[in-house]
Amino acid sequence: MSEIRAGVTAPETTDYKKRTAFFISDGTGLTVEAIGHSLLAQFRNQQVEQVTLPYVDSDERLNQVLHRIERAASESGLQPIVISSIISDDIRRQLHQSSALMLDVFESYLAPLAALFGTDPAHTVGISHGIANDRRYTARIDAVHFAMDNDDGRRTREFESADIILVGVSRSGKTPTCLYLALQFGLRAANYPITEEDMDSTALPKILRPFQHKLFGLTIDPRRLMSIRQERRANSRYASPEQCEFEVRQVEQMLRRSQIPYLDATELSVEELATRLMSQAGIERKIS
Amino acid sequence: MSEIRAGVTAPETTDYKKRTAFFISDGTGLTVEAIGHSLLAQFRNQQVEQVTLPYVDSDERLNQVLHRIERAASESGLQPIVISSIISDDIRRQLHQSSALMLDVFESYLAPLAALFGTDPAHTVGISHGIANDRRYTARIDAVHFAMDNDDGRRTREFESADIILVGVSRSGKTPTCLYLALQFGLRAANYPITEEDMDSTALPKILRPFQHKLFGLTIDPRRLMSIRQERRANSRYASPEQCEFEVRQVEQMLRRSQIPYLDATELSVEELATRLMSQAGIERKIS
Repeated sequence: MSEIRAGVTAPETTDYKKRTAFFISDGTGLTVEAIGHSLLAQFRNQQVEQVTLPYVDSDERLNQVLHRIERAASESGLQPIVISSIISDDIRRQLHQSSALMLDVFESYLAPLAALFGTDPAHTVGISHGIANDRRYTARIDAVHFAMDNDDGRRTREFESADIILVGVSRSGKTPTCLYLALQFGLRAANYPITEEDMDSTALPKILRPFQHKLFGLTIDPRRLMSIRQERRANSRYASPEQCEFEVRQVEQMLRRSQIPYLDATELSVEELATRLMSQAGIERKIS
Repeated sequence: MSEIRAGVTAPETTDYKKRTAFFISDGTGLTVEAIGHSLLAQFRNQQVEQVTLPYVDSDERLNQVLHRIERAASESGLQPIVISSIISDDIRRQLHQSSALMLDVFESYLAPLAALFGTDPAHTVGISHGIANDRRYTARIDAVHFAMDNDDGRRTREFESADIILVGVSRSGKTPTCLYLALQFGLRAANYPITEEDMDSTALPKILRPFQHKLFGLTIDPRRLMSIRQERRANSRYASPEQCEFEVRQVEQMLRRSQIPYLDATELSVEELATRLMSQAGIERKIS
């Protein structure tokens, strides 16, 4: 059965000794999986095997899924959890026949929304992550290629058309944040690494000065930076405590001196960096 | 007030003539926004202004939000919708004082889960998109840099360590799909464009043959390809109907001849491409 699973075990060797939570969707499963993760994160003391089952949109697939749920129940002796977003009433009804605790987003929320709007839901599958329209697709792809081309100071002649330019030391998280901003929000995000050559003074590098209003800094705890750099070039000067400390201190002074807003990336995920910097810089998304 | 909004109007000029749906979270807002989009997609005939308000985790921020909701209500004369994921009971209770229809994921689902587990939820904010651990962070960043370095056939010497190698004509969606696979699932995804030089025969390019087992094809409707390429190089041979048709036909023959699985990218979003190809190729995620 096709599936996407956390962990590395092959599907056929799944071990149902623990309780299993199934994240089931008739689409990509991305949304319901995110819901599942945040709910289960509130019960950290529980050992729960998490399995995402996307594209459950046919009777055949549904039967595989039902079988899978019952196997998890009987092998563990623990009631499975189903967190789902299934648009079809029929498929949802059949899922309810399983022995799992079933929490379905559409089941919970379509009725109150329908009552508010005074109209029935469309029951159309796969709208949320589909290609909404050509304009959205184009903006997104354009932003991705922009981020690729304008990564790591590789090119600066397109800075004029950037929505935001991230600056910071090497390996402070600029690249993944730019790519996330492009993919998720359609933003044209460039980045420019502050390297040792730029650190003779704490003035902004010349090339960045015309774009000061769209600069945003990332800083990072020097020890964390060191550990990231060690993974890349172990025992190099680049990854030494002295070098990491020096670079971070210089860049922070540079950012403060030029009054460039910045975030500390040490404890933040790429999603948090992206959304927080948009809030802080007052940048609006290009796609939704 | 800091916020992330669909559309391009500046926050202060928000026009509340339409009904407003607020997606409110104490974290990034990404999950609740995805839920909101998929629910409202079932009511396409309704005009709804959609506003995401992330990081609502203090009384000050909450008061701004409450004010905002009431303004939307009074300016439109229509009851607003709040779709939220708020972990704090206290903030949730205060949100309930507003005049909005309130649908909260934690409110709906924590109680049945707590009953099942026989234990109270932790009420800890911001776990779901935070840096879970160093290993996860490192795997993700490593995958992103791998995708960058191994984009567009730029480098092939790392194909050995790729989890998957996407092949297809230029602008069939390979690059964004690889980046998404890296960011979302920590997969090392490379891509290789099949260019005209490779099309003298329908045999697999030599460089790809040792990696046949990890190749995955993307194909695309020639008219769609043409319109994407026109955006990039209008009126070029590259974007001509004949060229697009020729390339797509050749690549499809190549994929079939070498029995490489492939997907038609024409109608699929990046999320759909990524999750479907993982299902089809039986690839497991590296991070969850």
